Amino acid sequence: MSIALIIPDRKLDDLQQRLQQALPTTPIEIWPDIAKPEHVTFAVVWKQPTGSVASLPNLKALQSFGAGVDGILSDASLPRLPLARIVDPALTEAMLSYLAGIEAYYRLRLDLFQQQQQQALWRPKSPRRLSTLCVLGLGELGTATALHFKAQGYQVNGWSRRPQQLAGVHCFAGTEQLAAAVGSADLLICLLPLTAQTENLLNADFFAMLKPGAILINVARGAIVDEQALLAALDSGQLAAACLDVFRQEPLVAEHAFWRHPAIMITPHISAVTKVETVVAQIAENYQRSCQGQSLVNEVDLQQGY
Amino acid sequence: MSIALIIPDRKLDDLQQRLQQALPTTPIEIWPDIAKPEHVTFAVVWKQPTGSVASLPNLKALQSFGAGVDGILSDASLPRLPLARIVDPALTEAMLSYLAGIEAYYRLRLDLFQQQQQQALWRPKSPRRLSTLCVLGLGELGTATALHFKAQGYQVNGWSRRPQQLAGVHCFAGTEQLAAAVGSADLLICLLPLTAQTENLLNADFFAMLKPGAILINVARGAIVDEQALLAALDSGQLAAACLDVFRQEPLVAEHAFWRHPAIMITPHISAVTKVETVVAQIAENYQRSCQGQSLVNEVDLQQGY
Repeated sequence: MSIALIIPDRKLDDLQQRLQQALPTTPIEIWPDIAKPEHVTFAVVWKQPTGSVASLPNLKALQSFGAGVDGILSDASLPRLPLARIVDPALTEAMLSYLAGIEAYYRLRLDLFQQQQQQALWRPKSPRRLSTLCVLGLGELGTATALHFKAQGYQVNGWSRRPQQLAGVHCFAGTEQLAAAVGSADLLICLLPLTAQTENLLNADFFAMLKPGAILINVARGAIVDEQALLAALDSGQLAAACLDVFRQEPLVAEHAFWRHPAIMITPHISAVTKVETVVAQIAENYQRSCQGQSLVNEVDLQQGY
Repeated sequence: MSIALIIPDRKLDDLQQRLQQALPTTPIEIWPDIAKPEHVTFAVVWKQPTGSVASLPNLKALQSFGAGVDGILSDASLPRLPLARIVDPALTEAMLSYLAGIEAYYRLRLDLFQQQQQQALWRPKSPRRLSTLCVLGLGELGTATALHFKAQGYQVNGWSRRPQQLAGVHCFAGTEQLAAAVGSADLLICLLPLTAQTENLLNADFFAMLKPGAILINVARGAIVDEQALLAALDSGQLAAACLDVFRQEPLVAEHAFWRHPAIMITPHISAVTKVETVVAQIAENYQRSCQGQSLVNEVDLQQGY
């Protein structure tokens, strides 16, 4: 029984070493250098090459290295096995810290003052009056975000596929309540999982539902947003600004129109990055659970895709 | 007995109207349209023209329209009268909100990501590790700022002219302890009053005391900073960045080098603006106190200049 790390875009020395400390007798190999593929029973996976997981015949379970699993599930050759994702309190804290900073950026009108600075223009203006905020997606991160901004004094609407209840948050569910959820929001924060239902959900119809001058923050997945519709909504002023941390294709190619749009702020997928030190324990625990035939911690519902 | 409003750069209809509601029987006139200068016993003053206050022979007291009084005291013709300043909880809240937003801006490296965006560069980087913060000036706003960032988990140093004590804050005092106060700081927040002692205090000697790569936020007065020394410290990398909300001359002239420096973020003196609604009560109270020969609320020590 051994563990394979299938995470091509990242240096794995540190993860391997720490995981080895937690599981001293278990061989831990880094894909594609797997000595005995038939010995591998557990794989830690992120942005895996198509077919890499399928090449390991005796896997019992899979562990995503991040909070999202849409990239993993997009591999059509993926064997149908229990799949766990990382639910990391440090990740939630990092996300809230990012969102609080971006909210302050727009509230203080730093976007406007930076544009004025480029033109040497001195035009004082009081802070934006942002009072209603809508969180799209009420999973771990969405729930924490809704409660955080509620505590900051916002009127908070939450929208999710299935009905939910959250203290102090006005919860909406399903396509038929989407317009009601987003229509009054000054600020929208997208934290939806990427699924067949949410792909391109933020399209022209969606932007038409918004209060003119709303601001969008997308920290979920790029493919949830229809890019042309977003650009049109910004150009018409229906959206005042968008802060994008995630993109359909990452890295965002240099030719992409998003880079140069004056109402778009781009951060390179830094809103919440999984830290090795905080996830080793979760991976080790799920490996041991898979050895004992137990269900995984933070196991994904493969039917729903999150 | 009447009140004169000597505030040339601001529309005063709202202030006059609200003050009139609070003091219905008192004539309130807007300088320079003062029918009977000899009747004026109380003046609300901000950026007054030299000699304007001296032209009112029977004044008993002066009220600054803001938290700072350096501009008022710089008028050599000013009669030596009791002078009060505004101490406004809403002002403190606005300042903390501004500073929290600017701190998050630098912590998240939005300055770096915005520079990268201009070049269509995708280079993720984890947040800046900001752990020690120094607040220069421990008056109303400085004290609130030190305690706010202490609660956020910062190691906080405070520096003031006279020794102070503040729970959880490492307090330093006087010129001889300035280097010790600022030397370990990742982030410096200037909230000093402008006096003969603090003018140009942030000069080349000061910047040489800092930890290389420190970040400066000036929300006090522009004249506390030696402009050429600041530019030199930014160019050498001794300072990584500066956020400036206040300037020696406001509005900052279009030709000023600050507008175009890539490591400077300019906001047009918006960090904390006195709101009419919150200060009317303080002005009305001090007017009544002056009529009764009582000491003023938030009276300035004219010897110290704040």
